[in-house]
Amino acid sequence: MEKLEELLTHITSRININLKPMGIDVEPILKNAIPRERHLLYYAFYALTTDHPLSFRFTNSSLGGTYFLGKTLVDRSVLYKSDIRGDELKRKGDVVEFDGIKTKLFYNEVIRIINSYLVKTLVHNYSHNPEIPEVFKILNTVAMHYSNIHGTTTEGVFLGPFATVDFSYMHNCVVGEYAYVQAGDLSRQVIEPGRVWIRYNGLFEFNYIYPEGVLKKYISMDENGSLSGEFFDHVDERKEDFLPIYSSISPEPFEGKGDGAYVSPYAVLKGNCTIGDNALVAQRAHVEDSVFGNGSNAQENCYIMNSVYEGLDITAHGAKVINTRLGNKVFVGFNSFLHGKKPEHITVGRNSIVMPHTIIDSDEPIAIPENSMVWGHVTCQADLATQCMTLDAMSAATDITMGNMTFKGDGKAFVDAFRERIEHILEANGAYYNGTENTRGHAQKTQDACFNILQPFQSGPEQGMYPSMTIGD
Amino acid sequence: MEKLEELLTHITSRININLKPMGIDVEPILKNAIPRERHLLYYAFYALTTDHPLSFRFTNSSLGGTYFLGKTLVDRSVLYKSDIRGDELKRKGDVVEFDGIKTKLFYNEVIRIINSYLVKTLVHNYSHNPEIPEVFKILNTVAMHYSNIHGTTTEGVFLGPFATVDFSYMHNCVVGEYAYVQAGDLSRQVIEPGRVWIRYNGLFEFNYIYPEGVLKKYISMDENGSLSGEFFDHVDERKEDFLPIYSSISPEPFEGKGDGAYVSPYAVLKGNCTIGDNALVAQRAHVEDSVFGNGSNAQENCYIMNSVYEGLDITAHGAKVINTRLGNKVFVGFNSFLHGKKPEHITVGRNSIVMPHTIIDSDEPIAIPENSMVWGHVTCQADLATQCMTLDAMSAATDITMGNMTFKGDGKAFVDAFRERIEHILEANGAYYNGTENTRGHAQKTQDACFNILQPFQSGPEQGMYPSMTIGD
Repeated sequence: MEKLEELLTHITSRININLKPMGIDVEPILKNAIPRERHLLYYAFYALTTDHPLSFRFTNSSLGGTYFLGKTLVDRSVLYKSDIRGDELKRKGDVVEFDGIKTKLFYNEVIRIINSYLVKTLVHNYSHNPEIPEVFKILNTVAMHYSNIHGTTTEGVFLGPFATVDFSYMHNCVVGEYAYVQAGDLSRQVIEPGRVWIRYNGLFEFNYIYPEGVLKKYISMDENGSLSGEFFDHVDERKEDFLPIYSSISPEPFEGKGDGAYVSPYAVLKGNCTIGDNALVAQRAHVEDSVFGNGSNAQENCYIMNSVYEGLDITAHGAKVINTRLGNKVFVGFNSFLHGKKPEHITVGRNSIVMPHTIIDSDEPIAIPENSMVWGHVTCQADLATQCMTLDAMSAATDITMGNMTFKGDGKAFVDAFRERIEHILEANGAYYNGTENTRGHAQKTQDACFNILQPFQSGPEQGMYPSMTIGD
Repeated sequence: MEKLEELLTHITSRININLKPMGIDVEPILKNAIPRERHLLYYAFYALTTDHPLSFRFTNSSLGGTYFLGKTLVDRSVLYKSDIRGDELKRKGDVVEFDGIKTKLFYNEVIRIINSYLVKTLVHNYSHNPEIPEVFKILNTVAMHYSNIHGTTTEGVFLGPFATVDFSYMHNCVVGEYAYVQAGDLSRQVIEPGRVWIRYNGLFEFNYIYPEGVLKKYISMDENGSLSGEFFDHVDERKEDFLPIYSSISPEPFEGKGDGAYVSPYAVLKGNCTIGDNALVAQRAHVEDSVFGNGSNAQENCYIMNSVYEGLDITAHGAKVINTRLGNKVFVGFNSFLHGKKPEHITVGRNSIVMPHTIIDSDEPIAIPENSMVWGHVTCQADLATQCMTLDAMSAATDITMGNMTFKGDGKAFVDAFRERIEHILEANGAYYNGTENTRGHAQKTQDACFNILQPFQSGPEQGMYPSMTIGD
């Protein structure tokens, strides 16, 4: 495994050169977070579809258990059980617009991952960096377990476990565990654990910070990159469910889904599940004894148990929904944790928004009204007084402080931005598919995907490394 | 010329997307600064030597009159009479160190110029960006006449005429005309015209700003990118001297230089010139009736007239030295203008430093003492009271304000950094060459360079564009 050790040393040096001035040393993490033999156990795989240009280039890397879709280049990196999802990569000739200025793409966009270390990370490419729309860049980045890099250029970034960076471009930043950032262009910033920060172009800014001590119960990481807490226990207890899938060359398809729906062969469906028309269950999603109404989706790393989705409901990457009923068109944000203790213990009314990184964890029933937004740490119905408001009230607001949340700016623009995004997600996922070409989305385009498998060297100095390869263009 | 127009539109959109928020619109400049037919007149050329890996890739670009040495990639860019000098590119396996952390290069370093517009720009590659030591990047950058990009990553940068960025990494910055910046990592800053700013790692900071109204006499640019002022007049009056050289496939070599010296066939030597041993006269340097002592150099875009260099004297890129005597080991910084009115009207004592972007322009004789530093705008000997000090005094200083100059921090570290740099330049240029391999520098390594020539399409939609090509690896 000399080559793999050399690679880890290389990545450590590149990260530390760029991030040590920000107070972080990744050496013990890269040394200890993944036992070496794990790099041999899992194969990497990529999807072939007629809708995504086939173009991969992998060099000097270890890719254990990682999934690729769309044009990707990986060099000098360790990816471990990560999802590199390039299904919204822009194409040559596409016109993009930033603040009213248009420009055309010269090449098909590529995801370029260099000198990076991603563990169980979800990368989604819908990128918003004006610097070079042809490249979605992940450079000198360490992303820990269940973090999300969502449309965000990362150049020298450390993401703690369950952290999310969304529609941003970040240069030399440290993002604490379970922090959520969607704040444009950031350079040399440390974002505290459990901060939820949404800022847009001087138009509005939303801030919430988890009260001190709360997060420890859910997620904490020691200096060697080992995790503890309920989030970790939840996924750890269910990891065996994925073994049969990843041990099979061609996993059994799920039968009985609705028309136009897609259930990834790399998703777990347990017990009695119903999947409606145009619904989407992505790879690495885990669904148990639940009803999925038409056009609903469960994105990567979601866990859904004993729950009912009435339809057009969105579970963003990494959200966990247990004993919950969602009315029509509810949005559950990234890595949220809706932990009902018995059936329909939590209900969310139609058209409501569960903000990213929200924890609802109560011994009594919780009912979120329709057309509302909820955020933060909800432990009883009374908490909603400071952690929930109607979208109408939000639309009329300018400055608000409620508990640990502050909002400044144009409330209507904030609500409109969310609504627009929800529509984008539903359209992009094919929730509105009616048989016409322009309503096709991920659910339909991925239908006929087939999966190719890559394996690492099993012995010698290259053990754990993958052969360099160019696939497609 | 449709393709060239399309390319200009493309570059305009990429620059404006990134820099309009910084208050700049490059559209009229890119439309008007270079008359279209000029793009056809000059050929691009590259040097072949056994000391520099041959590796060029040019795509979708116009390269008129531009010189390349060392591994370079140019895509979707307009380079006009620029020098892309890759003679200090790092090599695969080299170990670089940043703040005590070491890392090894995985590949030969490459200069990568994308979506950029460089006019008469000197690019020198001795780069100091920790982000990815294998790539020296110039992206979404407009650099106007006689600007210097010296070891500086530029991502979304506008450089005014005669501006210099030196050993920095800049993201979305605007640098005014004749400003000099050597200040580490900068993001979203506007640097005023005529500011000289040197800052290092919290150790020291030097600032000088030209008094209001002074610069107009020397350099000014209108909104269409047209220049006026004495700097411009000086170079414009001498441009015809370069015509015979650039009209010849193989210009006449200069005879009578000392041992180990190099005089580029693309330099102008007029009148009676003496070039000592191990001296270096770079391409696009202009030397007239001057004596060059051993180990002295005239870098690109320098103009030296009726002057005497006693030896080991350095004229950094773009400096102009007229009727001046330099004692031993004098450093004349970038784009400085030493304008003596009759022979030896200006004298600079040995071991002195003329700071970058200094103007000495007086009707009376000016004598800079030995072991001193001089900066700013000197119009008479009395001005030295606020614009010159001994290096010993500087070494002992912490906080100083003198006229428009302020200095904060460790004066000794500042002086040491300059001395170290001067030694680096002399060594790198081969000024100390004694016949041994490890004393060889640019003067010796470039001796046997031969030059290949590239021409643009002369008609049709591609007129003014260069064919895409890969040369070497």
